[in-house]
Amino acid sequence: MEARMVDALLLDLSGVLYDGDDVIPGARVAVARVQASGLPVRFITNTSRKTRAQLLAHLRALGFEIEGEQLFTAVDAARQWLLQRNLRPYCLVHRNILGEFDDIDQREPDAVLIADAAEDFNYANMNRAFQLCLEGAPLLGVGYNRYFKSGGEVLMDVGAFIRAVEFASGVEATIVGKPSAEFFHQAMASTTADPQRMLMVGDDVFGDVEGALNAGIPACLVRTGKYRPGDEDRVAEDFPVVDSIVEAVELALV
Amino acid sequence: MEARMVDALLLDLSGVLYDGDDVIPGARVAVARVQASGLPVRFITNTSRKTRAQLLAHLRALGFEIEGEQLFTAVDAARQWLLQRNLRPYCLVHRNILGEFDDIDQREPDAVLIADAAEDFNYANMNRAFQLCLEGAPLLGVGYNRYFKSGGEVLMDVGAFIRAVEFASGVEATIVGKPSAEFFHQAMASTTADPQRMLMVGDDVFGDVEGALNAGIPACLVRTGKYRPGDEDRVAEDFPVVDSIVEAVELALV
Repeated sequence: MEARMVDALLLDLSGVLYDGDDVIPGARVAVARVQASGLPVRFITNTSRKTRAQLLAHLRALGFEIEGEQLFTAVDAARQWLLQRNLRPYCLVHRNILGEFDDIDQREPDAVLIADAAEDFNYANMNRAFQLCLEGAPLLGVGYNRYFKSGGEVLMDVGAFIRAVEFASGVEATIVGKPSAEFFHQAMASTTADPQRMLMVGDDVFGDVEGALNAGIPACLVRTGKYRPGDEDRVAEDFPVVDSIVEAVELALV
Repeated sequence: MEARMVDALLLDLSGVLYDGDDVIPGARVAVARVQASGLPVRFITNTSRKTRAQLLAHLRALGFEIEGEQLFTAVDAARQWLLQRNLRPYCLVHRNILGEFDDIDQREPDAVLIADAAEDFNYANMNRAFQLCLEGAPLLGVGYNRYFKSGGEVLMDVGAFIRAVEFASGVEATIVGKPSAEFFHQAMASTTADPQRMLMVGDDVFGDVEGALNAGIPACLVRTGKYRPGDEDRVAEDFPVVDSIVEAVELALV
């Protein structure tokens, strides 16, 4: 392997590789190039509308070759967090992923997990989460994302609904996905690379870029997905901004 | 009229006079005493599940004698705010009060109004509000309340849902109800009393008590409604805490 500036690449999924069912132009070839180069790559996502198996199948259907051990999901991190603490969660999550928590006792909940529940973010479910937190249940969130883009539409993401429950209950959420440094560290630890010689690539200036920088990882913002002009000015640090994953992979493979 | 410490009384409704359909013990007599005493009294509420007419009818049905000109609602304040600025709001409000905005053009909205929409706080409506704000529409809220108590249950209030849209869109809401000083001032201006010789009575330590104090009005917290032990420590200033409106009226009529 030739000497490079970057020893490992961390890639966000939605908005970087694809937008809903549309592949970002050039992304398929860019990912294939990275995989063929031997550069260690990890995919880290807060997406919580799909199970790990559904995510891998979706990626394969879109033409991306990704191994299961390269994929780090916030949903997996949430499962581990709950199991380690022996908690019984009320799961305000998408019905698609409810099955991921089937083996965890959820009777008489003593914790609240909020993932991207989409249509299940309704008044009754929000109140259930709030009431448990007001009684002292810890609040766990898969991410703190503000919004995401899907099928040309911007949609409120999990962070906004977590914020609502935090505000009403006075409980501060623990975030297990991005921008949590611990989550970045899990993905990093699966490679032998030095964090300072990694590159995180994402379309979310807070969750991906600011989160990685706070975890000691250089990061790069792409102008695809949820990116909106001026996003680079919303975070104080300097970082490269590129048109898409195509240019980001160029940077990494130099 | 004898010389008193207090020259005008401002009373919150829900949690002070009643809890859902239950009258707070002693509240009916306490309000009747104030009305008979000649002490100017104003009722100021962020409640937005009922129209002004429904509120007055509800109060009458519960046995409270209150004149229309004594009642100040955040919904009225929101109407005025929108009309003064000639805005076309998307109204994320309770279906009960939709009619209050019938005379305001709501086609191609260029503003967002959030009131306590209850079951209409669903994913589709929240996204509609968010998307308009992301495009630059000003966000108007009737209050910033965290939760309220109704029929023995605590429920998330409008502030939490406003917070979610603020967080996702990056737009800061304008609050027209409590704790906005302007709203307190409207109610105050309808009396001739000096603000410093008024007394605001409420069960919400933030919206009622902190809000009034910030508007220059002495305030008193009651241990009914949404009150929870320790609430008095959540606001830095000192203020009296009493068991209910009965004791608050005692204070005011001394």
